[in-house]
Amino acid sequence: MKRRGLSSTQSDKLFEQIYDYLLERIRRGEWKEHEKLPSVRALALEFNVHRLTVFKAYQLLKQNQKVYVKDKSGYYVQPGLGLSLETRNDPIISAYVQESHLSEIHQVQATYQFSKALLDPNLLPNLYFSEYVKKVFDLYPKVLGTYSTTQGDQELREALCQYFHKHFHFYLTADELLVSAGSQEAIDLVARALINPRDVVFLERPTYSPAIDVFRRQGAQIVPIEIDEHGYDLDQVEQFMQLHKPRLFYLNPTYQNPTGYTVPAEQRKRLVELAAQYHCLLVEDDPYRDMYFGEKPPLPLFSYDTSGAVIYIRSFSKYIAPGLSIAIIACRPSIMKVLIKAKSLSDSGTPLLNQKIFLHYFFSERMQQHLEKLRIALSIRRDLMEEEFSVTDWEWVSPQGGFTLWMKLPQTVPMDALLSKSMEHSITFVPGLICDPLRESKSWIRVCFSYLNEQQLREGARKLISVCNMLQQ
Amino acid sequence: MKRRGLSSTQSDKLFEQIYDYLLERIRRGEWKEHEKLPSVRALALEFNVHRLTVFKAYQLLKQNQKVYVKDKSGYYVQPGLGLSLETRNDPIISAYVQESHLSEIHQVQATYQFSKALLDPNLLPNLYFSEYVKKVFDLYPKVLGTYSTTQGDQELREALCQYFHKHFHFYLTADELLVSAGSQEAIDLVARALINPRDVVFLERPTYSPAIDVFRRQGAQIVPIEIDEHGYDLDQVEQFMQLHKPRLFYLNPTYQNPTGYTVPAEQRKRLVELAAQYHCLLVEDDPYRDMYFGEKPPLPLFSYDTSGAVIYIRSFSKYIAPGLSIAIIACRPSIMKVLIKAKSLSDSGTPLLNQKIFLHYFFSERMQQHLEKLRIALSIRRDLMEEEFSVTDWEWVSPQGGFTLWMKLPQTVPMDALLSKSMEHSITFVPGLICDPLRESKSWIRVCFSYLNEQQLREGARKLISVCNMLQQ
Repeated sequence: MKRRGLSSTQSDKLFEQIYDYLLERIRRGEWKEHEKLPSVRALALEFNVHRLTVFKAYQLLKQNQKVYVKDKSGYYVQPGLGLSLETRNDPIISAYVQESHLSEIHQVQATYQFSKALLDPNLLPNLYFSEYVKKVFDLYPKVLGTYSTTQGDQELREALCQYFHKHFHFYLTADELLVSAGSQEAIDLVARALINPRDVVFLERPTYSPAIDVFRRQGAQIVPIEIDEHGYDLDQVEQFMQLHKPRLFYLNPTYQNPTGYTVPAEQRKRLVELAAQYHCLLVEDDPYRDMYFGEKPPLPLFSYDTSGAVIYIRSFSKYIAPGLSIAIIACRPSIMKVLIKAKSLSDSGTPLLNQKIFLHYFFSERMQQHLEKLRIALSIRRDLMEEEFSVTDWEWVSPQGGFTLWMKLPQTVPMDALLSKSMEHSITFVPGLICDPLRESKSWIRVCFSYLNEQQLREGARKLISVCNMLQQ
Repeated sequence: MKRRGLSSTQSDKLFEQIYDYLLERIRRGEWKEHEKLPSVRALALEFNVHRLTVFKAYQLLKQNQKVYVKDKSGYYVQPGLGLSLETRNDPIISAYVQESHLSEIHQVQATYQFSKALLDPNLLPNLYFSEYVKKVFDLYPKVLGTYSTTQGDQELREALCQYFHKHFHFYLTADELLVSAGSQEAIDLVARALINPRDVVFLERPTYSPAIDVFRRQGAQIVPIEIDEHGYDLDQVEQFMQLHKPRLFYLNPTYQNPTGYTVPAEQRKRLVELAAQYHCLLVEDDPYRDMYFGEKPPLPLFSYDTSGAVIYIRSFSKYIAPGLSIAIIACRPSIMKVLIKAKSLSDSGTPLLNQKIFLHYFFSERMQQHLEKLRIALSIRRDLMEEEFSVTDWEWVSPQGGFTLWMKLPQTVPMDALLSKSMEHSITFVPGLICDPLRESKSWIRVCFSYLNEQQLREGARKLISVCNMLQQ
């Protein structure tokens, strides 16, 4: 049976949206096995559609064995559908199958840790960093006795204004920047401040998987936008904007996680225009910008934006200092106002200590020089991984930056078995399914080359290939 | 004017560090326009540098028009510099009237800051702290390159287990503790993990006002429980539990914010029994425990709990290190599971650096000795404030711990006018209305005695009384 998604060309069909709505909620467990579902009449009223449309949705659910009919009295949830049944033994695997959250894969301890998109701590200038922090304490002797404001340290926001202006032609003031505790908090704040249940959110397909979790939890209706190495199909994006009236499009256009793809400059410009035209906010997540292997990447979408449609999230955790958890949100005042309010409810401001350390560390000459070394180290690791995987018939597009390889395996590879067998060999990776808002991409995996050293990468890659070969025999 | 940054090659020049230090504080409004700055001699002593170094910093500030010299008597803050300018036609006051959020009152810059329940940074052992942090970096050279787990650093959680066991008879394991970024995040996580729209939540009346905002935002139906200096009316609490079937009761039973009241031990025991009987979780917020002025307070509710009904939130920000933002949640595994999940969506774990600093700092002998000094300093400030207010006909119960006085003013005092007139005199306090879930308590105010020094407290109290008298004439 093929699951009907909104990404298909028939996506405008109302009955399929209702199909998705119902199936999604059945999966979430809002109705239990054998529980009666809302009547056709009630749903038709709720969605303001013709009863026949709801009827068609129920027929398709019935046909796909998601619901059953009892004595003509209505539709009931089919037992044994759910996600809960597929889970048997290994608690982690079962957690994955059940809920498919990245954080659960990450809990697995493994020698060959291909799942975490983190930088090898040995690639950071740790000694220099420690020396530096000591200076910060001399400079701000009372930093630990002081709360930050909710929006973040003024000195840091001013320094970042200048930085964004100089490098990316952002025109903004310190009031248009908010300091968050890493990009996860930033995405969460955006979702909480701007999304109400059933608002439409566009997500790239595939996308950064915690974003799926955050927007779903907020009750968003998710519409996937396909991304490939050339970017998006912008005609389709426009159609979808007309059709779905999305509140926002969360995207990661530069060395995208998981694919490594980069949206070209001309598409960025047009996307910003479309967003302004259709009143769709673009939430641009940009954590890998400095990690390019050849040419510098195109400017951020925010650089092209004159209408205030772009919210720019720049994490500095990934390659500056994961232990500090610092990210910045840039946006226009009307949105900043609601973000600050959301932030004031979720914490009392990002710790001042972390902001001051980041300020002095990031803008030091030594750090900026270090970024060049990092780029070289990462591109060597990418090359090495591509060399190892060149013996397989797996397919991928060579990433020009970032931390990840996104690879398509032959359809004959049983993915669940690959994950569990790999874990037995102390190897972890991210199954592509987790990164797919539709949860359909069974043949893809994300492999990170940023965390392990070169020898571990080679050994891990060989072991992963051999596990895969075993399963195909 | 070129801003002098530490990123420049002259970064080691001491006078520039002092320049930055002074400018930062002028911007923050720590000294007002036309206010006299510390003398060269005083700063030279404070920073342990030559007077000429401080002199050079002041010369540069003068040259950059940040300060001016008057009659050779010293340096004064140049007007028109600061953040204070943005608050001219009082957007804050209007925001308060509109929405009554604590965070908005807190944005007001004032000389007599009675609104923030924060510790005077000068009461913290800052120098010792800086020295200590340097040691932490020697101990964990890669701490800034490493993410924490979502649940928090294992070493810290184990140390806290022992601490809680020894001092409060908690029986738990490290798996039953989660490290959050301050108590605000802790309350938010609890609300997000456990509250669905229309769930009933009990709040004390009055209560910690951000808790009202958080639970309301989560869609909770709020039922107030009156608290006075003897605790609750537990018969009524039982009736209300029967009647309303609350999901949880958020409470702050020890030196409560805002009232300073403490719920007696015998009530704690019965409340825990009621909670178990009626399946109501008790969310015990306990940020002031160590700040007692006479006897130690009764044990936490968590100490009496055998059924898993209590979730214990212990912030260490208030009097250990506001700049670190560390709080702990203790609860049983079934609840921990959902909290960890909520935390994984809202950030990637509390920064490891902050956890490691806290671990070593909090458990040092010096810190534990320092707590004794803090208690004495705070009780002196409370005495002093009570002495000042003894000339009025205001009513209050003398708090035996904590940071706040909760005072009832005569009904003839117009509260809105009192707040705005006070702000004109650079005095802030928290109107009781903000702390009342019913938004009815018009005659009460919360005045904090923890943030200002003794002289400022006296001056501020006298000014506040005189503003109030003016309004009553």
